[in-house]
Amino acid sequence: MLILAFDTSGKTASVALIRDDLILYDVLINSGLNHSEVLLPAIHQALAQTGIKITDIDLFACTIGPGSFTGLRIGASTMKGLILAAQKPVAGVSSLEALALNISPTPKKICALMDAGRGQVYIAYFKYEKNGLMERVDEDRVLNPSQIKIEVEEEEVIFVGDGAVKFADLLCRTHPPKAAIAPTAKQYIRASSVALLGRRKYQRNELVDASTFIPVYLRSHDAHVKKAS
Amino acid sequence: MLILAFDTSGKTASVALIRDDLILYDVLINSGLNHSEVLLPAIHQALAQTGIKITDIDLFACTIGPGSFTGLRIGASTMKGLILAAQKPVAGVSSLEALALNISPTPKKICALMDAGRGQVYIAYFKYEKNGLMERVDEDRVLNPSQIKIEVEEEEVIFVGDGAVKFADLLCRTHPPKAAIAPTAKQYIRASSVALLGRRKYQRNELVDASTFIPVYLRSHDAHVKKAS
Repeated sequence: MLILAFDTSGKTASVALIRDDLILYDVLINSGLNHSEVLLPAIHQALAQTGIKITDIDLFACTIGPGSFTGLRIGASTMKGLILAAQKPVAGVSSLEALALNISPTPKKICALMDAGRGQVYIAYFKYEKNGLMERVDEDRVLNPSQIKIEVEEEEVIFVGDGAVKFADLLCRTHPPKAAIAPTAKQYIRASSVALLGRRKYQRNELVDASTFIPVYLRSHDAHVKKAS
Repeated sequence: MLILAFDTSGKTASVALIRDDLILYDVLINSGLNHSEVLLPAIHQALAQTGIKITDIDLFACTIGPGSFTGLRIGASTMKGLILAAQKPVAGVSSLEALALNISPTPKKICALMDAGRGQVYIAYFKYEKNGLMERVDEDRVLNPSQIKIEVEEEEVIFVGDGAVKFADLLCRTHPPKAAIAPTAKQYIRASSVALLGRRKYQRNELVDASTFIPVYLRSHDAHVKKAS
């Protein structure tokens, strides 16, 4: 199964191609340019570099949020165009889950944190099961980082994501020695993770189509404010 | 400090740009094409996508082996050309160390294994220190995978790399439950890891120049046989 995946939910953009669980191409772009300038050329490059045609793709996968309103809109619009034209299914993947997958198997809990602006973070917890698969512990939510202390009292937690970097001092001050911040290189969403999680959604029969594929903003207020402006 | 790094030591190619510890661009290409067809276009893309000129680069970094003879030759030749023209220093990074850096901080020992052909593997052990930095436990070597059992008797080990995938059955059969194989997505060398390790070499004053920059084959026989053919 050939999967094309991308992520534009945060400050970086990423595009990947995988065949089953083999990564064929995976690019992360952190150029400061708008995702609308970066995404389509990066998809074009991924296909060109691997000699794969868009019509060869069996499944598309894309982060559906949480994340930046503009980034998610660009991702969702591009994806809707692709799947309408290609008549193929799509898997919507949580940005927080893709982020958590940067952490290799560990007995610790993984807390994915994305900077949500206005002093808030998008947050979700994950854990590796004995079968080696990472599973979700709770739903994606938005909250103030000072509220995080309730959740980590009983076990060690690795925090990952730009929210973890931004609030590292607070997290390490309030939860020593149970809090660890992931290394810098693990703080970016990789589209290869989105593709692998999309493949799991396919295996679990959790796909959507162009009409049911919608971003998840968590703070619906964001969507309305930005729409109006 | 702006660093351009690449890896062509194995079956995949990778190119990255980092500014200090911020990843600006990181691509992994596993297209089956010869590295000589892939490397320069990928470097060109990395610079174009980030708006960076080759003259802006402060430091170059590249895997120097162990790995495939042809891949290392292409990497070293390209690097020599770049640093001679740019008159900038270069850091030579172990492919096994770059591979091990895929594993996020863990109390376990990390064993990087690259398939060396002829039933052998390139191998080195690494461990995360309390300061969060991964350090080498022993030198890069080449051996038969059946010899690995001596090293892991006293502690748990995560095996990573295409050598770990190829010999997974042997490793898990001879060392249960102490052996774990890293997930598939962690089995590729990322040039961003090469860049970060190159930065550490710069900080530790371990750089080389065009005249002293040479690949490390470990099996010198490989070089002579292929040179003659």
